[in-house]
Amino acid sequence: MGYSDVDWKAINTIRLLAVDATIKANSGHPGAPMGMAPVAHVLWNKFMTFNPKNPQYINRDRFVLSNGHGCMLQYALLHLFGYGVSMDDLKHFRQVDSITPGHPEAHDTPGIEVTTGPLGQGFSNAVGLAIAQAHTGAVFNKPGYDLINNYTYCFFGDGCAMEGVASEAASTAGHLQLGNLICIYDDNHISIDGDTKVAFTEDVVKRFEAYGWHVQHVKDGDHDLEGIEAAIKKAQEVKDKPSMIKLTTTIGFGSKLQGTGGVHGNPLKVDDAKQVKQKFGFNPEESFVVPQEVYDLYHKHSAEGAAAEQAWNDLFKRYSSEFPELAKDFSRRLSRKLPEGWEKTLPVWKPTDPAEATRKTSEKVLESIHEAVPELLSGSADLTGSNNTRWKNAVDFQPPSLGIGDWSGRYLRYGVREHGMAAIMNGISAYGTLIPAGGTFLNFVSYAAGAVRLSSLSHQRVIYVATHDSIGLGEDGPTHQPIETLVHFRALPNMMVWRPADGNETSAAYYMALTSTSTPSILALTRQNLPQLENSTIENAIKGGYVAVEAQNADITLVSTGSEVGICVDTIKVLKDQHGLTARVVSMPCTEVFDAQPKDYQLKVIPDGIPALSVEVMSTLGWEKYSHEQFGLNRFGASGPYKEVYKKFEFTPEGIAKRAVATVEFYKGTKPRSPINRAFQQLI
Amino acid sequence: MGYSDVDWKAINTIRLLAVDATIKANSGHPGAPMGMAPVAHVLWNKFMTFNPKNPQYINRDRFVLSNGHGCMLQYALLHLFGYGVSMDDLKHFRQVDSITPGHPEAHDTPGIEVTTGPLGQGFSNAVGLAIAQAHTGAVFNKPGYDLINNYTYCFFGDGCAMEGVASEAASTAGHLQLGNLICIYDDNHISIDGDTKVAFTEDVVKRFEAYGWHVQHVKDGDHDLEGIEAAIKKAQEVKDKPSMIKLTTTIGFGSKLQGTGGVHGNPLKVDDAKQVKQKFGFNPEESFVVPQEVYDLYHKHSAEGAAAEQAWNDLFKRYSSEFPELAKDFSRRLSRKLPEGWEKTLPVWKPTDPAEATRKTSEKVLESIHEAVPELLSGSADLTGSNNTRWKNAVDFQPPSLGIGDWSGRYLRYGVREHGMAAIMNGISAYGTLIPAGGTFLNFVSYAAGAVRLSSLSHQRVIYVATHDSIGLGEDGPTHQPIETLVHFRALPNMMVWRPADGNETSAAYYMALTSTSTPSILALTRQNLPQLENSTIENAIKGGYVAVEAQNADITLVSTGSEVGICVDTIKVLKDQHGLTARVVSMPCTEVFDAQPKDYQLKVIPDGIPALSVEVMSTLGWEKYSHEQFGLNRFGASGPYKEVYKKFEFTPEGIAKRAVATVEFYKGTKPRSPINRAFQQLI
Repeated sequence: MGYSDVDWKAINTIRLLAVDATIKANSGHPGAPMGMAPVAHVLWNKFMTFNPKNPQYINRDRFVLSNGHGCMLQYALLHLFGYGVSMDDLKHFRQVDSITPGHPEAHDTPGIEVTTGPLGQGFSNAVGLAIAQAHTGAVFNKPGYDLINNYTYCFFGDGCAMEGVASEAASTAGHLQLGNLICIYDDNHISIDGDTKVAFTEDVVKRFEAYGWHVQHVKDGDHDLEGIEAAIKKAQEVKDKPSMIKLTTTIGFGSKLQGTGGVHGNPLKVDDAKQVKQKFGFNPEESFVVPQEVYDLYHKHSAEGAAAEQAWNDLFKRYSSEFPELAKDFSRRLSRKLPEGWEKTLPVWKPTDPAEATRKTSEKVLESIHEAVPELLSGSADLTGSNNTRWKNAVDFQPPSLGIGDWSGRYLRYGVREHGMAAIMNGISAYGTLIPAGGTFLNFVSYAAGAVRLSSLSHQRVIYVATHDSIGLGEDGPTHQPIETLVHFRALPNMMVWRPADGNETSAAYYMALTSTSTPSILALTRQNLPQLENSTIENAIKGGYVAVEAQNADITLVSTGSEVGICVDTIKVLKDQHGLTARVVSMPCTEVFDAQPKDYQLKVIPDGIPALSVEVMSTLGWEKYSHEQFGLNRFGASGPYKEVYKKFEFTPEGIAKRAVATVEFYKGTKPRSPINRAFQQLI
Repeated sequence: MGYSDVDWKAINTIRLLAVDATIKANSGHPGAPMGMAPVAHVLWNKFMTFNPKNPQYINRDRFVLSNGHGCMLQYALLHLFGYGVSMDDLKHFRQVDSITPGHPEAHDTPGIEVTTGPLGQGFSNAVGLAIAQAHTGAVFNKPGYDLINNYTYCFFGDGCAMEGVASEAASTAGHLQLGNLICIYDDNHISIDGDTKVAFTEDVVKRFEAYGWHVQHVKDGDHDLEGIEAAIKKAQEVKDKPSMIKLTTTIGFGSKLQGTGGVHGNPLKVDDAKQVKQKFGFNPEESFVVPQEVYDLYHKHSAEGAAAEQAWNDLFKRYSSEFPELAKDFSRRLSRKLPEGWEKTLPVWKPTDPAEATRKTSEKVLESIHEAVPELLSGSADLTGSNNTRWKNAVDFQPPSLGIGDWSGRYLRYGVREHGMAAIMNGISAYGTLIPAGGTFLNFVSYAAGAVRLSSLSHQRVIYVATHDSIGLGEDGPTHQPIETLVHFRALPNMMVWRPADGNETSAAYYMALTSTSTPSILALTRQNLPQLENSTIENAIKGGYVAVEAQNADITLVSTGSEVGICVDTIKVLKDQHGLTARVVSMPCTEVFDAQPKDYQLKVIPDGIPALSVEVMSTLGWEKYSHEQFGLNRFGASGPYKEVYKKFEFTPEGIAKRAVATVEFYKGTKPRSPINRAFQQLI
């Protein structure tokens, strides 16, 4: 306790950096930084442990700004505490190729833990960070060695509070009793439409209590630094519940428009900025000013953080001699490298092995590799028995008090909360010691699209186990049968969409998903049984596309994925026997990985001179990139036994042969160029 | 009150129809129907007014089964009360082309109000139905003429309660004080992963109280018919709050596995079914049995519903003579036809008019047409000032007690709840008297993907006003800049994705969106100003694609949309002056509508003989369908002033010219076939 002038000077410095940067950019959100500067000051300077010289220090406290539009708050803090964010970077706020973009991006800016801005995501990431902390502590801490005990702090506003994804994550966090999670709700009554009373009159405190959170209210977030400090301290002491502190603040504090929507998303007018500076005792004619005593105050705190890391390093050294295996595992995880030889545990199938659903081969992969890859944390959004995401003898990640698991458990029951699951997985991945895999039906990965996009943008190694991947799920019908889903996620940059055709391709998908340290994956898996293919090997499949059945002097290439590859193979005989045509078959489990192969390899797979026909039981969009003609389903599916449904839509050897014949006929006399040949390179 | 044997016979008949149908289909969910049959019986037979002979009777009470997997409950009720669902239909449960698919589909089955199954959607649709009821009543009811006063009832389970979309809708409903909405929460403690205690331990009652709902608990939902009846009656009396009744039930009541996950998603074993029948006093050897007294009981209630409709028709006749204009408007709305001449209010732009953002031209369209189209209900997910969705002098749809609007208001503040907004709009549209339009950024339509999909599947006339549609939004950066979004929704069947290039194309988009009675639309609109094009007219644009700039003996066709069309037009001069090439430009605001044009028209737009290059600042996937080569953005965008961002990614006349030159070079000496020519027709 005990705050003096320098504290207020620091708070006002933060506020004015936000004012100046948004004015210079002529864009951005000064209101939240001006309103939340007091709590940010107290939290960062009195409570948080971090070392700006090493933003990756593993036991650092995590900070998430879920209301990411207020990122000048965070950029100002990073600068003032001595992270690699310079005054020049602040002056380039919201400019092309700066490290201070319009919303915080984890991959680009030192000290940013997760990418936020899309509302509700950061809050949910924070739940994931807290889960990862609890799990990592449970696995590695030993008596006398409290290696991992950091807190996760999160700021969120009314927008995040309204988003369903945050509701899902909050309910999950309450269930999981995440004591080290402390979230501060900026209750400023303003969102873009103005006063929140136009749409948001619920009792947020009561709602969080209903979720099982510990809740406090600090009524004067603009001035009551002692009250803020006491509330955070109290929250730290509550160990069996996550904490939410409702902090009533004035948005744009100090501006002539404070407390109104006018300061939410627009820079202050120049004269308003001047009066704010005057009010705060700053020179109204100067911009981007940091009093030296503010730097001194914050650098002192940063030095304490550096010392804390040094102490931790000493602790870890002693730990390493007492628990060498654990220490080795811990360090390895931080390097993001998998254990040596882990890939030998990937199961391999022979062509003579029985047909199996790829959700089942996926289960076998998990069963087979989970011991070798201890950082793998599996789970499902309430479809465990359908997604087959749980290995035998898995322990649930649960608060021990419930008696149904413990913190070291590696199976997470996300509940029926797909979007929350995805956003939580982003947070788990961002922590640095775990690889999350979470299951749902492929169709319901769409519920999570907002978070899946951020898996890609923020380079998280997250695995979506997406079963029931097509009309092949049968009776559940069109409400559950994806049509648009694969092309949606294929169009998402930095995402691998895998649709394995059999067991070995499933192993390949996991191999790539686990070894691609900065790319998430969606594994689209079948409910129905698929045969094991002749040429399917892990080595072939990790190229993204390969020749499943070769033929000399072929008339056509059939390019297919997943459950349709086997049907294409069966089509060869129909084409030969009934039409005298020779077909070759390409399996293309992952177009994104195929795109990364050398062109000469790609041309061997989809050669010049003969037409290619793609075959996949959903939207044809995007397949023009790899084929001349496309057979797919550009309408909704149907409810019925899956074989009947396939028949209805002619996804049978005869139905495919019919399109293949039409394709050969259409291109007769031409020597069509392979679609691999393009006029120019795409920007990447 | 007063329940007798026949009531229990009816309840058990429902249960056994669910048992028999799931056994026959060897698929489906008997548990929820068996658990909820008592409340269904009380609700449908004692409270609900409907006429099975005319499922469209407008003042009917609406029923939504949000836990749609339990649809045998609903199919059984529809059959027993005499809707057009026969015993034979029940026997074809979950079979191809039946009207009893795996989850209820509004468009196909009489008596199904909305398409449910994807969890959380039905509950949110119910909120929309209740909003539409409140609004329609406020507009049309007059003293002595309570034309519209129906209730909306919804059943939902633990799965729906966990979904964020339902949380968003529940918070909205509480804010809006929707007194005619009564939701019954099937508290059976079971979801697919088993006991809900593994993931869902929050206090649901308290949470709904926090949202502002009236909440009751009936503890013995298996037996206490009087308690259920009293609770529904009490809920009806609460007029200033939506009501939630927590009903504790036993899933699979009667089965040997009752109360366990074993009855959730699998048919009963045959011997279990037999013992249930015996227990309920039915012949264990018979299936699909309905005692005549059950038919009699329910048909009597249906006859009362028919009489109620007759009385309503008489009332409406008197209303028509007293309020002829209102009555005419009411009847017209039900016919789904817009007012005669409304299209003359669509604004028209001249090529000399100043450049304008299409979010601004969209605002002008709304401003200009809203009086002529009184069924248009606009709104935004807290981006009113950015989406420009609100006409001047609009009145908010709000409970009058808040003093900021009233029930007749036509502007809905959805809050920061994109998914909830979309699902609520589906419900509003399903009511039958309104056309909802709701705004958010295009990137955040993805948050709503689960509901957008159901707009399409269930044929709702819903309009998504999706502004800030590309990297052209500038400073907000990659977290807000869509890349994958357009192809995602273009791949969704029965969805029109419009990306107008100027004012007239914006009017065209609204024209098509409003007149397509069973197809939803997404209008992708810019933040930045765009010039008015020479050849842009409503008549041209409603073809989905047209020649914006024609040229004789052209070397290349540039096919583009929205903000890039104008840049393509500017590219013509660069190509001519610097490369001696002649280009023609096609504007393609809506590929789905272009697909529906006659082939000879399509070939005039994208002709044989010269290469076509598509130009759109996002994923190129899908553009291969309309062009030989594609210029797009297959990576994430950048934060900065939008002109800088466009320059960075070379979306300038020079950047486009470079790709056009490469394309012409690549196809030199060939006479490429137009991509419009295909080897075979797609299934639709």
